[in-house]
Amino acid sequence: MDLYIDRDQLAVGLSRVQGVIERRSTFPMLSHVLFHAHKDGLRVTATDTEVAYIGDLPANVQQPGELAVDASNLFAMVRAYGDTTVHMKTLPGNKLDVSCGRSEVRLPGAPASEFPAMPAFDPRGTARLSEGALRRLVDQTSFAVASEDHRFGLNGAHLEERKNAAGERVLRIVATDGHRLSAAEARIEGEVALSPRMLVPRKALAVMKKLLEGDTETVELGFGEGAIRLQRAGQTFWFRLLDGEFPDYSAVVPKEGKHVAIIGREELSSTLKRVAILVQDRARAVKFSFREAELEIQVHNVDRGEIVESLPIELEGEPIVAGFNVRYMQDILAVTKGSTIRLEMAHPLAPCLVRDPESDEAFFVVMPMRLD
Amino acid sequence: MDLYIDRDQLAVGLSRVQGVIERRSTFPMLSHVLFHAHKDGLRVTATDTEVAYIGDLPANVQQPGELAVDASNLFAMVRAYGDTTVHMKTLPGNKLDVSCGRSEVRLPGAPASEFPAMPAFDPRGTARLSEGALRRLVDQTSFAVASEDHRFGLNGAHLEERKNAAGERVLRIVATDGHRLSAAEARIEGEVALSPRMLVPRKALAVMKKLLEGDTETVELGFGEGAIRLQRAGQTFWFRLLDGEFPDYSAVVPKEGKHVAIIGREELSSTLKRVAILVQDRARAVKFSFREAELEIQVHNVDRGEIVESLPIELEGEPIVAGFNVRYMQDILAVTKGSTIRLEMAHPLAPCLVRDPESDEAFFVVMPMRLD
Repeated sequence: MDLYIDRDQLAVGLSRVQGVIERRSTFPMLSHVLFHAHKDGLRVTATDTEVAYIGDLPANVQQPGELAVDASNLFAMVRAYGDTTVHMKTLPGNKLDVSCGRSEVRLPGAPASEFPAMPAFDPRGTARLSEGALRRLVDQTSFAVASEDHRFGLNGAHLEERKNAAGERVLRIVATDGHRLSAAEARIEGEVALSPRMLVPRKALAVMKKLLEGDTETVELGFGEGAIRLQRAGQTFWFRLLDGEFPDYSAVVPKEGKHVAIIGREELSSTLKRVAILVQDRARAVKFSFREAELEIQVHNVDRGEIVESLPIELEGEPIVAGFNVRYMQDILAVTKGSTIRLEMAHPLAPCLVRDPESDEAFFVVMPMRLD
Repeated sequence: MDLYIDRDQLAVGLSRVQGVIERRSTFPMLSHVLFHAHKDGLRVTATDTEVAYIGDLPANVQQPGELAVDASNLFAMVRAYGDTTVHMKTLPGNKLDVSCGRSEVRLPGAPASEFPAMPAFDPRGTARLSEGALRRLVDQTSFAVASEDHRFGLNGAHLEERKNAAGERVLRIVATDGHRLSAAEARIEGEVALSPRMLVPRKALAVMKKLLEGDTETVELGFGEGAIRLQRAGQTFWFRLLDGEFPDYSAVVPKEGKHVAIIGREELSSTLKRVAILVQDRARAVKFSFREAELEIQVHNVDRGEIVESLPIELEGEPIVAGFNVRYMQDILAVTKGSTIRLEMAHPLAPCLVRDPESDEAFFVVMPMRLD
């Protein structure tokens, strides 16, 4: 292998593998990036065997070849380069010589044969959507995925194909940790061809957040046996699905609420930021009193003090008092964009439906808590 | 106490006490700020008994009074306020009612009588210098102070009055951890009237870094019995000195070096950034080979790889090879401003004198290390 590559291109390529590699594994290859130079450019591959990434970078390849090296050190090095062209060359003894300007580094490597083989992938169906839309689906749902819950079916996000109100095919992603639920959907072309009981793990969602940078470009999701393949120009991301039964969530999504409040989103967000300061125990219910034209939020904490915040709202239906985990509300406000947010409740202990009143693309359910 | 104060003024005043308060003390008053409202404004006081800060803020005081409250929660709250005027009022039971816009918080407090009394201070001499100059002295020396060294005299910075080459009075601050030394000086008016064996502790240096924001304003240092008082407009910072014998450092400052290298500062800085990536053990010597017109820096690490960097230098005297802790060199490059840096050595194991060739205001000594 002997090639010249633009420093920024190489840095971007290596930055994309940082979320995929597994630094603390006992199997050193999982912290490595595999370089494969061929006549059209340089391919970088990384995997922790649950997720895998393949990216193609433009490079001036003098001599094809392959070698795997530690991805973190090389990435740090490339970011610190002052010059713009990087020369990479394999040396005898599985070493990679990387030089840029007056800097030359020789990194210990491993032959490609020691790198885990990429799994075979045979899609039984594909769906296409815009990169920005997929990114939104991930952003609006990933925070609600449970973290190592004993209910195995909550430890990943659920995918399904539906028809929206206009009769269009949409991909819906749903996540819940048992206390709150997020659902977001976006129009697709093609079909969602998933085997049942398959969930997208947290790490795959986290990697997608990093990879999906653009907006209008089209990405393709391929649905295979227990795995999904995401393709965008020059990049492939593959991830294994979790085998777990997602709960029948339709039961907890409230159908109608007698009490509907419309609240300014940014105003509620800055209010909750102050309220959260006095909430010592995250799981503690905060009192939300919805009145005719005012929402009053109160915390009473013996050690930290009391806070009373009020903000103007529009309320349909009777006044109502309910307890919420402030953090859950903050998470929702962070992933919606409208000027207002709509809260809908049947009674103080019924699930609260939260959504941007200007958008049908997502909804959220927050379970209220008993007030002491 | 009953007053109105500008939110930004209060936020700045509270931000200045954050470095002074001690959050993990068993004595809760040390995490508190004492408010004292008087006819001219609001005084904030914080102390951990080793350092103390008093700041005066403009405020519209309706009714004078005093109360101490937890400083961190209030600071977080004030920063999150959307409106610009804050109303603070004491309530029965040592509570502080703070309201801003539609937000109202009641914080548990403690009477001023429970707050530690500020120590008496009777300066036996004072020195004045510009705020920017004092900040530079602290920046250029604080990193070299030892951290909990068993040699007690290394755990603080040493202050002394000297005459510079032009015969002017200067304040010199010196710090060393036994492996490297920093000395920086600035012209003063007045006199440094310190008792012997007195050192400025690390925390006082850290607080000064935060407080000294301006440039040309004059600050006054007052020298008392085992303590120093720093005064700038509307603010007083007091700190207790450590009782410890600073070593006679003049012995380690090299008088002349046969080998003198002039190196581009930014170029050396970016080179060392790359070199540091492959240095696993911080205390490991890195090989610096000074040649006629080139400095070659080499690291050989079995696990991480080898690096060879070269950069152009001007060298007076014979070529020389020496080992250095890269981190020590990086610390110096971060606090000098000139376009070049000058390294001066008598022989490979003699202390290396480092300085900005364009400035007499500071010098640094780095002990070389044996190369394996």
